[in-house]
Amino acid sequence: MEQLKHLQNDIEKALAELKVSHQPQALYEPIRYFLSIGGKRIRPILVLLAARMFNNKREDVLNQALAVELFHNFTLVHDDIMDNAPLRRGIQTIHEKWNPSQAILSGDVLMIVAYQYLMRTDAQYMEALMHSFNKMAIEVCEGQQMDMDFEQRDDVTIPEYIEMIRLKTSVLLGCALEIGAIISDASENDRKNLYDFGVNIGLAFQIQDDILDVYADAEKFGKQVGGDIISNKKTYLYLTARSHANEAQNAIFEAQMSNSNHAEKVEIIRGLYDELNIRQKSEVAMQEFYEKAMQHLGAISVDENNKTALIGLADYLMGREV
Amino acid sequence: MEQLKHLQNDIEKALAELKVSHQPQALYEPIRYFLSIGGKRIRPILVLLAARMFNNKREDVLNQALAVELFHNFTLVHDDIMDNAPLRRGIQTIHEKWNPSQAILSGDVLMIVAYQYLMRTDAQYMEALMHSFNKMAIEVCEGQQMDMDFEQRDDVTIPEYIEMIRLKTSVLLGCALEIGAIISDASENDRKNLYDFGVNIGLAFQIQDDILDVYADAEKFGKQVGGDIISNKKTYLYLTARSHANEAQNAIFEAQMSNSNHAEKVEIIRGLYDELNIRQKSEVAMQEFYEKAMQHLGAISVDENNKTALIGLADYLMGREV
Repeated sequence: MEQLKHLQNDIEKALAELKVSHQPQALYEPIRYFLSIGGKRIRPILVLLAARMFNNKREDVLNQALAVELFHNFTLVHDDIMDNAPLRRGIQTIHEKWNPSQAILSGDVLMIVAYQYLMRTDAQYMEALMHSFNKMAIEVCEGQQMDMDFEQRDDVTIPEYIEMIRLKTSVLLGCALEIGAIISDASENDRKNLYDFGVNIGLAFQIQDDILDVYADAEKFGKQVGGDIISNKKTYLYLTARSHANEAQNAIFEAQMSNSNHAEKVEIIRGLYDELNIRQKSEVAMQEFYEKAMQHLGAISVDENNKTALIGLADYLMGREV
Repeated sequence: MEQLKHLQNDIEKALAELKVSHQPQALYEPIRYFLSIGGKRIRPILVLLAARMFNNKREDVLNQALAVELFHNFTLVHDDIMDNAPLRRGIQTIHEKWNPSQAILSGDVLMIVAYQYLMRTDAQYMEALMHSFNKMAIEVCEGQQMDMDFEQRDDVTIPEYIEMIRLKTSVLLGCALEIGAIISDASENDRKNLYDFGVNIGLAFQIQDDILDVYADAEKFGKQVGGDIISNKKTYLYLTARSHANEAQNAIFEAQMSNSNHAEKVEIIRGLYDELNIRQKSEVAMQEFYEKAMQHLGAISVDENNKTALIGLADYLMGREV
């Protein structure tokens, strides 16, 4: 996707030129550092593509795209503290390179700067933008709390898991698209459908992520295959397997929880998944969310040609790119 | 001040009735807990008094008052983590009662809810409100970082200290008043003067706080007299003393840094302060900020009778209440 690279470059350039202060250095250095470690910049690109879909040619939509990316980075900085993660994209996290206090505070500033960029637009859009953004922001925090709660629970259901990933990761994709629609004067109905397209793509993407953790080609995957199994993470695959397992299979799951031979543990759990047809079951669920997303996109009242970029991005995210 | 108690009750009632969600409980329980532990609620009262000064009788100004109080509580929750403080007002802090992750996340939500309440007003005010609020929010974070930086430095100057307390504590008072002025259609000039009134009262109040830590009547003070001395805090008194001390006096300061006999340490440092006339010097500085504040209040183009409530609150804060 040539266009994707161009858009990524636009975002990288804008982030590098971001007008934030330099003093106190201990506050702004971690922010610059974190924004420079890269990423696919999918969320701001969603804002830009949504605006283009409605033929919005204004250049200042980049401000709202940056707002979404800044908010996303705020969540990453704080989540990394909570998850005690030493690395992100192979680079030291802020709390690790500096300390937790600086990570808390620079995360706070990222969120405030996100609001500043969100508001760099015409006054007529502010109310709708703030309403959409605040709702999303609260939901993302709720999703993070649910995710932490799930670590302590043994009775997480699949609907609860779907709700958690909807809040923690998917509503931000929906909101990014909705923001693009708002600043392009899209109708209420189109806004809603675009939001639902984003949320459902997000859910499909997360389930795919869960599948790849177990079944990805190790060379292409870029991170350890089976990482979720090793850390006993309650993924879509795990929860589906547990809900279908018989007594004997459940006993194996329980026994493997504390297996410190990681290679063996991954092999045994993957064996159970295969017995229970979990890969196929997960792919069906993923496909359902993907199709739901496409239905919502289909319902939007713009020329079909205007939708190809978003379909292309969705397919890129789902690894369907040819 | 009978009026102050009424206003405090209004704020307490509104905070208790705050429309925030209940689920996930692990996220919202700490928020309700923290908002219920009380405080003087000075900042939201400043919003209300500013609105009244300009004869704004609308009831919805309470939303912006709550926004300011919610933001203040967000800073307290995150500062308590950074300062590793086990107690606030004698009650366990969130990170202590629950854990740092829940304190980070519930602080984040408090900030977002602050933005939600800030925006509960007519669209015409949103741009000005967001501009004032975002600027303040960034500055408060910068002040907190400077405060942490100062702990590691031995060359902090008095102007740097004033700048730190301006950012960390005073701009929020200024912004609270400015917000009250914005939603009351005050002129640009009146807004500016009211903001400067707040900032200067904040500076005077902070210097008074530094003085009280050393010279307060132990029975009335409510916390340990000399606490700042024991923790080697770089207060206005300390920095003024060090800048006036001769070589011999500076040697005593250095030696006392590590004195673990706290009562003796407080007595010796207070003795140095007395020799160097630090109490009087600090009172002069405090008085200058107070008078500057009153000049800005005096310049506001409303009937003098409309200013008495704010003067009363300032005098209450400065302990000048008869």
